[in-house]
Amino acid sequence: MNAITRLLQPRSVAVIGASADPSKTAGRPVSYLVKHGFSGAIYPVNPKVGEIGGLKCYPDIASLPDTPDVGIVLLGAERAHLAVRELAARGCAAAIVLASGYTETGEQGARRQQQLMEAAGSMRILGPNTIGLVNLTDNIVLSASGALEMDHFPAGAIGVVSQSGGILGSLLSRAAARGIGLSKLVSTSNEVDLELADFIDALVEDEATKVIALYVEAVRHPEKFRAAALRAARAGKPIVAFKIGRSEAGAKAAVSHTGAMAGADRMYDALFRQAGVIRAQTFGDLLDIPAALATGRQLRGNRVAILTSTGGAGTLVSDSLGVSGFDTPAPDADTAAALRALQDGDHAALDRNPIDVTLAGLQPELLRGAIKALLASPSYDALAIIVGASALAMPELMANAIRDCLPLSDKPVIAYVSPHAPEVQALLTQRGVPAFSAAESCTAALAGMLQSSRWKEPQPQADAARMDVTELPTGSLDEAQAKQLFARFGVSCAREVVVTSAAEAERAARELGGRVVLKILSGEITHKSDVGGVAVNVTPEQVAGRLAAMAEEVQAKAGVRPARFLVQEMVAGGTELILGMHRDPLGTAILLGMGGVTAELFQDTTMRLLPAQGGLGREEALAMAQELKTWPLLDGFRGRPKADVDALVDAIVAFSRMAAQLGDRLVEAEINPVFVLPQGQGVRAADGVVVLR
Amino acid sequence: MNAITRLLQPRSVAVIGASADPSKTAGRPVSYLVKHGFSGAIYPVNPKVGEIGGLKCYPDIASLPDTPDVGIVLLGAERAHLAVRELAARGCAAAIVLASGYTETGEQGARRQQQLMEAAGSMRILGPNTIGLVNLTDNIVLSASGALEMDHFPAGAIGVVSQSGGILGSLLSRAAARGIGLSKLVSTSNEVDLELADFIDALVEDEATKVIALYVEAVRHPEKFRAAALRAARAGKPIVAFKIGRSEAGAKAAVSHTGAMAGADRMYDALFRQAGVIRAQTFGDLLDIPAALATGRQLRGNRVAILTSTGGAGTLVSDSLGVSGFDTPAPDADTAAALRALQDGDHAALDRNPIDVTLAGLQPELLRGAIKALLASPSYDALAIIVGASALAMPELMANAIRDCLPLSDKPVIAYVSPHAPEVQALLTQRGVPAFSAAESCTAALAGMLQSSRWKEPQPQADAARMDVTELPTGSLDEAQAKQLFARFGVSCAREVVVTSAAEAERAARELGGRVVLKILSGEITHKSDVGGVAVNVTPEQVAGRLAAMAEEVQAKAGVRPARFLVQEMVAGGTELILGMHRDPLGTAILLGMGGVTAELFQDTTMRLLPAQGGLGREEALAMAQELKTWPLLDGFRGRPKADVDALVDAIVAFSRMAAQLGDRLVEAEINPVFVLPQGQGVRAADGVVVLR
Repeated sequence: MNAITRLLQPRSVAVIGASADPSKTAGRPVSYLVKHGFSGAIYPVNPKVGEIGGLKCYPDIASLPDTPDVGIVLLGAERAHLAVRELAARGCAAAIVLASGYTETGEQGARRQQQLMEAAGSMRILGPNTIGLVNLTDNIVLSASGALEMDHFPAGAIGVVSQSGGILGSLLSRAAARGIGLSKLVSTSNEVDLELADFIDALVEDEATKVIALYVEAVRHPEKFRAAALRAARAGKPIVAFKIGRSEAGAKAAVSHTGAMAGADRMYDALFRQAGVIRAQTFGDLLDIPAALATGRQLRGNRVAILTSTGGAGTLVSDSLGVSGFDTPAPDADTAAALRALQDGDHAALDRNPIDVTLAGLQPELLRGAIKALLASPSYDALAIIVGASALAMPELMANAIRDCLPLSDKPVIAYVSPHAPEVQALLTQRGVPAFSAAESCTAALAGMLQSSRWKEPQPQADAARMDVTELPTGSLDEAQAKQLFARFGVSCAREVVVTSAAEAERAARELGGRVVLKILSGEITHKSDVGGVAVNVTPEQVAGRLAAMAEEVQAKAGVRPARFLVQEMVAGGTELILGMHRDPLGTAILLGMGGVTAELFQDTTMRLLPAQGGLGREEALAMAQELKTWPLLDGFRGRPKADVDALVDAIVAFSRMAAQLGDRLVEAEINPVFVLPQGQGVRAADGVVVLR
Repeated sequence: MNAITRLLQPRSVAVIGASADPSKTAGRPVSYLVKHGFSGAIYPVNPKVGEIGGLKCYPDIASLPDTPDVGIVLLGAERAHLAVRELAARGCAAAIVLASGYTETGEQGARRQQQLMEAAGSMRILGPNTIGLVNLTDNIVLSASGALEMDHFPAGAIGVVSQSGGILGSLLSRAAARGIGLSKLVSTSNEVDLELADFIDALVEDEATKVIALYVEAVRHPEKFRAAALRAARAGKPIVAFKIGRSEAGAKAAVSHTGAMAGADRMYDALFRQAGVIRAQTFGDLLDIPAALATGRQLRGNRVAILTSTGGAGTLVSDSLGVSGFDTPAPDADTAAALRALQDGDHAALDRNPIDVTLAGLQPELLRGAIKALLASPSYDALAIIVGASALAMPELMANAIRDCLPLSDKPVIAYVSPHAPEVQALLTQRGVPAFSAAESCTAALAGMLQSSRWKEPQPQADAARMDVTELPTGSLDEAQAKQLFARFGVSCAREVVVTSAAEAERAARELGGRVVLKILSGEITHKSDVGGVAVNVTPEQVAGRLAAMAEEVQAKAGVRPARFLVQEMVAGGTELILGMHRDPLGTAILLGMGGVTAELFQDTTMRLLPAQGGLGREEALAMAQELKTWPLLDGFRGRPKADVDALVDAIVAFSRMAAQLGDRLVEAEINPVFVLPQGQGVRAADGVVVLR
C-alpha cells in the first residue's frame, strides 16, 4: 500500500493532543472515530490524561505500542512540527495537521510551514490548516469537522476534495441531508505536501468513487493538476469543480484564506475545459451535478420530457431548461397516443410538454405507464419528473413508480420537488433519481451530464518542424520584425515593405498596387497613431508627400525624427480579431478576441492554455473561434459573407506553435488586428507586438 | 367590509361538494379549516353525507342556516357554475372555484368559464382552477393545497399572490420550513374575476402585510397592475415578482430585427421597473428577497461586512457579492482596532473582510463585541454573518449574540448558514436575521433591498402642447415624411431635400455643403440598399451622374424607375443608435438600442412602457441610455469624445411624446439609425419608418 492509500484507509490512528472533552475541537477526532465505527486501533496521545472515552491514552508518540498508519496532530502551530518529526521517525505514512497559523497568516506562518515540511521528511502531510478527511466507504473519520455531529451519512460514489476545511463540513452535511452518497472527503487546505492532484489520482484508483467533486481556491501545480484530471477523464470518472474567485473580492479573500497565488479566473475556465473538468457555476452545483453524474447514465442529447401533476412547477422547470438551451418538445404522435391510452378526461394535458397528468393522474399504474412511455420515446433524451405538494401526503407513490421503471432505460431521470419535502428528495436520490428543489439545479445537472458525455480530449498539434530562432534579438521587436516572426511560423501577414525615403515609399506602394497604409517603424514609439505616425488609404501618388509630412509631425510630437517607415497593403472587407498570448501562474494561454470597440466593451475573448508539448490542435483553435459571442460575424450573420475560418484556424495554430517553441523567451506577443477575409481569401496580420528575452 | 375583505377574513364558510374522506382532495378544505383553527362557522354541503368531521353537513346551499361569507366550490367544471349561481343568490361575498377544465383546456373550457362568470353576477369569484387562499394572520385556511398537511406555519409580514395553485403550496411549505412568516396567500389562477391587482390592493390595505410576493404567469390588465403596484410602492410596501417565461423571450430573440429583439418577457422588465416591482431572477429569490425586505431595514449603500469563523464560507459569500457589484472593504482603522481589542492570537484575521474570528472566536462576548463594532462602523451598510459547522453543536450561540445586538442599529443583517442546519436557519430568520443556505441568495436579498431603497417613481413628461396631426395620411409614410413627423415633435433630423431631377439634386447638394447621401424615396421599396438605391459620400460634382446611374440600377433590380430622391447631409463621427416603439399585449414601449452589427448580436436594447398619459420623462430617458451595455461608448470610453447625451435624451422624450399622442394610430415607428454626435453637436435622425392607420 502506498502512503496515500494508508492515509485514506488506515488500520491504526494516533491522535496527538487529543482532549478528553468531546465538546472541544481537540476532543472531536477520537469521539468521531468511535462514533462513526472505526474498526482499527485508536491511540490518543496526551501526557495529562490517562484514558479518553475508554481508550488508553499515551503520554507521547514514542510510547505508542505500534506504528500508526496515520497521526492526527491537534497541537497548535507552535508545536505541531515537533509531533510531525516524531511521527515521521516512527515510520507513519502520513500526518494530518489541523493547526492554522501558517502561510495564510503571513511571513512568520510561512516559516512555520517550511519547518513543518522539513520535519516531515519523507512522511506525507495533509494540511496544515486542514479539517482532515472522511472515508465514508469504510467508516473511517479522521476529522474534527462539526458536521460529523450528524449521525448518519449515506455512502456513495462521489469523492470530494476541498481546499477549504469548513466547506468539507458543509458538503458532508448537505449531501447527507439530500441522500447524496459520498465515498471519500479530503480537505487539503494549505497543501504543504499532498494536494488536489494527489487525491484526484487516489480517487481514480478508488473503486468506490465514480465522480470527483473539487472545491478549488487555487491550483498550485497546474501541469500536475491537468495530468491528473486527464487521467480521471480517461478512466471515465468525471470531475466537477467549483472554483472561488470569480470576483476580485472573492479572489482576494481566497488568497488571504490559503495564502496561495491564484491565476486569473478566466484561465481556470481554460484549464478546466481542456482537462475535461466540468465547472460548477454555483456552490450548490458542486453537489447537484455530481449527484446526477453518479447515476452513471449518459445524456445523449438536449431533449427533455417533463412529467408533472402540477402545472406551475412543470413550467418552472421547462422555463429554466429553455433558458439554458435545452429543448422540451411535445410528445411525438406515438408517444402521445401511448399517453392518452392511460388516461381519459379533458383536463390532463398529455400532448404537450410538460406532460401534465393532473392530480387525477397520481395513481401507481398510470404513473408507471407514463414514465415507461416517455423513457421509450425516441423524442426524448432525458426525463424530468415533477413532484408536487401531494407528495407530502403520499411520499412513496412517485418513488415506487420511478423505481419500477428505472431499469427499463439508461436515459437520465431526474426529479424536481416543488414543496418543501426533504425526505422525498432524499428518498428519490437514494433510489437513483437525483432530486432537486430548484429548477436551476435540474438544468445545471443536465447541462453537466451533457458536457460530460460530449467531452473529447483535445489533441495537441501534430509535431511540426522546429524553427531556428537562435538569431532572434532580445527586447521589443519592431513591427516589421514581429510580423516576420509570425510569418516564419506560418501566420499570413499583410504584404509590406520597409522604406527609408519618399522615393522608396512610392516604389513600394506601386509594387503593392492600389492604396496603402504608411506607418513609422520604430522600436521606441509604441503608440504610433498618437504622434501622427499612421496614415491609411494613401495612393501611390500621395505616399511620398505623406511620408515627408508624417516625418515632420512625428518629430514635432515625439521629438524623434523617424528614420524608417512601413508601406503596407490596405486590408479591407474583413473581420477584425485580436490574437495574443497571456502569461499567468497557471501557464501560458493563447487568447482570441473580437476586435472593434464594441466587442472590446463586451470582453469578447476566449483562451486556451498551451499544452505541455507543442501548440494547440486545429479542433481547439476552431472551438475557440466558435466560442466567441460574435462568432456569427465570421459565420455569415445577416447575409454577410462567411469568413475564411480555415485560414483563421491555421493562424491560431501557427501562433500557438510559435508561443510553444519560444517558451520562456517570449515575454509578450500579440497580433492586433488580424483581419479575417471572406472565404478563400485568408487572413492578414496587420499589426503586432513581440517582446523577447 | 368589502367583498375582498370578506373573502380574506370570512366569519363563515360553506364548502360545496365536501367529502367526508379527508385523504381525498374534496375532503381537505373542511379538514384543513378545522385543523388550522378556523373560529367561524363551517357549513359542509353534500346531499349524500350527514356530517363531516363532527360538523353538520347540509344537503344543498338553499338549506344553509345563514349566508356564508365565502363558498368553496369543490364540484367539477360541469357543475361548478350551478353552485356559484346559488351562492350568488344567497348573497355570498365570494366563491372560490377549484375545478380545472376552463380556459386552460381550450374552447369548450372557455365557454364554461364564461358561464361561470355569468352565474356569479355581482358576487366575486376566485379562480377557477385555483387552490384557494390561506390567511395565516387569522388562521383561516380556504384551500385544498397538500402543503397544508404541515402542522405549523409561522405568521408574518409577507403577502403572496400566485397565478399557480401548485406554486402557492410550494411557497407555503418552503417558507414554513425556513421560518419565513407569511400573512396571506392567494392563488388567482384563471382570474375570471379577481386578479393580481385586486389582491395587491387588498394587501396594501392589510395591516399585517409589509411586503408582497407575486408569482406571475401573465399580467392580464397591465394598467390596473401598474396602478396597484404604484400604490403599494407609495405605501412603502415593496413588491417582489417572479415571472415565468424567460425562455420564450430567448427563442424570440433569435428572430432578428428590433421588434423581435424586444420580446414579450422584456416588456415585463419594463413594466416591473417602472412600477417599482423588484424582479426575482429565480424562484428561490421569490422567498429570499421578501424575507430580507420583511425586516423593514433599509440598505443605504453597497458596502458589506462579512463576519465569519470559517474561512471558506466567508469567501463564498464575498465572491458572490463581488460578482454582483457589492463592495466588501477591509475594516477602517477604528473598526479594526475595536475588533483587535476583542481577541488576541495571530490566527484571527480581523483587519480583512471577511472578518474571521476563527473557531477560537466563537464565544458569546466576543461575537457580541464584533457584531456591535461592525454595525457601528461607518465603513459598512450591512452585515452578513457566516454560520459554520460548529453551529450544529451550539445552535443558539450565534442566534443569541445577534439578537442582543440587532436593536443597536437599523442596518440590514443577514446570515449564511454553511452546513445543512435548517433549524438554525429558521431560528435566525424568526429572530429577524434572514438566513440563507446559498451565497447567491444572500446577494439576491441584498440586491433586492438596495433596489427597493433606491427606487424613485418615474415622473412622466410635463404636459406639452399637442400637435395638430389631423392631416397625416394613413399607411406607410415615405422616409422624408417620416422624418418630418419626427421633427415636428422635436427630434433633430439630418438636413435633406427631396429632389426629382439631377439638376435639383446638384443644387441641393451645394446648398447642404460638402458630401451628401443620395437615396431613392419610395413608399414601396423598403430595402433601398438591396436594389442599389443608396449612395454615400457623394460630392456635389458627382451627385447628378450618380442619380442617373442609381435610377438605372434600381429600375433593373426592382422593376420600378424611381421618380423622387433624397439628398441628405452626410453625418459622421457619431454613435449609431436605434430608437423605436414596440407594441405588445402589455402596452406600447419605447425601445432604445445600440446600432451596429456587433451591438445587435448582443441584443443591446432597453425598453420603457409609455405611461398612461404623456411620454417618458427626461430621467427615464437618461436611465435608458445608461442601461445600455455599450453606454460607455456615449460616455467617453477610452478617450472617445463624450456624446451629446442631453440631445439624445431630448430625442427620446420627443419620440415618446409622438408615440403617446398618436396612440393607436401609430402602427410602427422607428428611427434607424439616429446618430448621437459629440457633446454640443446634437443628434441626427438619418433614416426612419412610420406606419399609420
